[in-house]
Amino acid sequence: MRLMVYDMAVYLDHNATTPVAEPVVQKIIDSLNDEWGNPSSGYLPGTKSKNSIAEARQHIALMIGGKPEDIIFTSGGTEANNMVIFGIVSYYEDWLKSVSFLKVTNEKPHVITTNVEHDAVILPIRHLEKTGAIDVSIIHVSTRGCVVPQDILSKISHTTCLITVMLANNETGVIMPVEEIGRCIKEVNKQRKAENLIRILYHTDAAQGVGKIQVDVQELNVDYLTVVGHKFYGPRIGCLYARGIGQETPVYPLLHGGGQERGYRPGTENTPMIAGLGEAARLVCENLSTYSRHMKIIRDYLEEELKEAFGEGNVIFNCSKDVRRLPNTCSVSLIGVELVGHVVLSKCAHIMASIGAACHAQNKPSGIIATVLK
Amino acid sequence: MRLMVYDMAVYLDHNATTPVAEPVVQKIIDSLNDEWGNPSSGYLPGTKSKNSIAEARQHIALMIGGKPEDIIFTSGGTEANNMVIFGIVSYYEDWLKSVSFLKVTNEKPHVITTNVEHDAVILPIRHLEKTGAIDVSIIHVSTRGCVVPQDILSKISHTTCLITVMLANNETGVIMPVEEIGRCIKEVNKQRKAENLIRILYHTDAAQGVGKIQVDVQELNVDYLTVVGHKFYGPRIGCLYARGIGQETPVYPLLHGGGQERGYRPGTENTPMIAGLGEAARLVCENLSTYSRHMKIIRDYLEEELKEAFGEGNVIFNCSKDVRRLPNTCSVSLIGVELVGHVVLSKCAHIMASIGAACHAQNKPSGIIATVLK
Repeated sequence: MRLMVYDMAVYLDHNATTPVAEPVVQKIIDSLNDEWGNPSSGYLPGTKSKNSIAEARQHIALMIGGKPEDIIFTSGGTEANNMVIFGIVSYYEDWLKSVSFLKVTNEKPHVITTNVEHDAVILPIRHLEKTGAIDVSIIHVSTRGCVVPQDILSKISHTTCLITVMLANNETGVIMPVEEIGRCIKEVNKQRKAENLIRILYHTDAAQGVGKIQVDVQELNVDYLTVVGHKFYGPRIGCLYARGIGQETPVYPLLHGGGQERGYRPGTENTPMIAGLGEAARLVCENLSTYSRHMKIIRDYLEEELKEAFGEGNVIFNCSKDVRRLPNTCSVSLIGVELVGHVVLSKCAHIMASIGAACHAQNKPSGIIATVLK
Repeated sequence: MRLMVYDMAVYLDHNATTPVAEPVVQKIIDSLNDEWGNPSSGYLPGTKSKNSIAEARQHIALMIGGKPEDIIFTSGGTEANNMVIFGIVSYYEDWLKSVSFLKVTNEKPHVITTNVEHDAVILPIRHLEKTGAIDVSIIHVSTRGCVVPQDILSKISHTTCLITVMLANNETGVIMPVEEIGRCIKEVNKQRKAENLIRILYHTDAAQGVGKIQVDVQELNVDYLTVVGHKFYGPRIGCLYARGIGQETPVYPLLHGGGQERGYRPGTENTPMIAGLGEAARLVCENLSTYSRHMKIIRDYLEEELKEAFGEGNVIFNCSKDVRRLPNTCSVSLIGVELVGHVVLSKCAHIMASIGAACHAQNKPSGIIATVLK
């Protein structure tokens, strides 16, 4: 959160969505007016649009430490995550074809993930599992809300071809050991290559990390990374990073049509939103440490005030202090029979916050928090 | 086209993309600033966003004569078309399960379409055909650029479950007999029901029709219709109409995640773009006849001037006069050895036009025009 007073209320739900930063709004307006050409057209309005998209791609690449050509713009994080997950089925099929010396088996591609992923990761996985296309291992996080790398690694089998672990949880703010797991997968993959086993692809949904903490695809050792604009003061689109796209890391398009985004994501490009996403990325590149520091100061202040107001024993912070967490997130339980989350919030006329992800019912306890507190 | 002088050049490529209408730009700006809340959140910024989406849905429904609840917002026409086409595989599977008295066969769902569809229709169909998921019949249009209904109907088999015919061609402007084909499919479906055969679903990609001619889902007799904002002065998103969604007409989500758009299209809604799409639809509802008349006047003027300038025998209009066509589209061939389309255009410093769809190479003759002229 950056503190925002809105119609005399304080907005405390920035993990659901952020307002759009003023320079981002301006960029979108300029683009709507001046970059309306079809980026595939050769004349001036088209090339203006094309150049604007190229510039945005560079800002995003810089923000996450990747190459511009490894960025594919998507309609949002849900689409980016679905692309990676659905792609696994084709990836496995193609690999089976390439190793023709293997006997045909009934084995399926195997995916490993955690039990606190966003629905945009867990539901496409569940869908593929239900249709019989993949096998799945869901790793439970520890009581600290954090996944234990060894728990992930111990589930690797010879058919494992995707591991996906979110960078930070949207409800608890816990930062997952994505980097450490990535380092281990790298080593595992070296051995698998020698054994002619399929390479494990590694994905992180970084929706909640970008704009709050440093996100670097090299440090994280990921093959795929999902970026979502409206979580860092940008517009409602996103992108997928894929390391060495098409060469080092396969990408299978979800959609088929015009050749946009080098065929990986057809559909006339949403230039104004892409320009806005690039601007939001530029702001992050320029100001991340200031943003992070500010977020941490007001988050810590809020937590101190909560303790002060309710009494230390009556407030439980749902992440233990020894866990790395986002600087902007405060997940708190209030002790008391009548202190049910959604009831409390409904009585706080001046606070806009939530008891779980926005896309879940707002009158039932969060499954994620229940998991962490268990 | 509405005549537009741009940087001292005249823009004549409105079927590739239109500029964004000023009231649409304003609507998007207002929404970016004031409707940034997550539509799934219960507090004020969320409900503002939710209401804005509901209003847009109503404008679009009114524009196409459908019910608001039958509209699903998508990232664009490519996604809407892909949803319909990929959904057919599940539709056929579900039907097979429901008629358990049938013996299991190796037959595949059968799709019928034309040879002048946009890539966003033809390529997902080709993809499914290539992977062995469907059988396909591609019907060639006549030399008038128009598909003959009987040619479509004669290909119907007991496994046919989708017919998709574009409302108007993006290159020639020819309006297809979607209404007539739809009427026939209705009759065919009555008979199929009596024979326990799968119902044929009927889709039209109306990308090029909306905003230029009256588009009414009731008159057209379609189950699905694709709307694309940036073809009628709106933003770069779109929507899918599905008649009696989930009840009368099945929709299978392409993406899995949060429950947005009643689960048919997860992903946090792109409120500003949706609001802009609604505004573009409102403008069409209010002004369609004025727009159409204006387009026809300047299109006819252009054609007269071309005949005057080159001499009647040296100009071929690629659609015969007796075919219904969009009021805004002029498809013309110039006779002469050196009069190669892209060369001519490259020398016209003050005209921005194209020799084919923007997403195709701009230095090769258009396959669509070749088909029509054959």
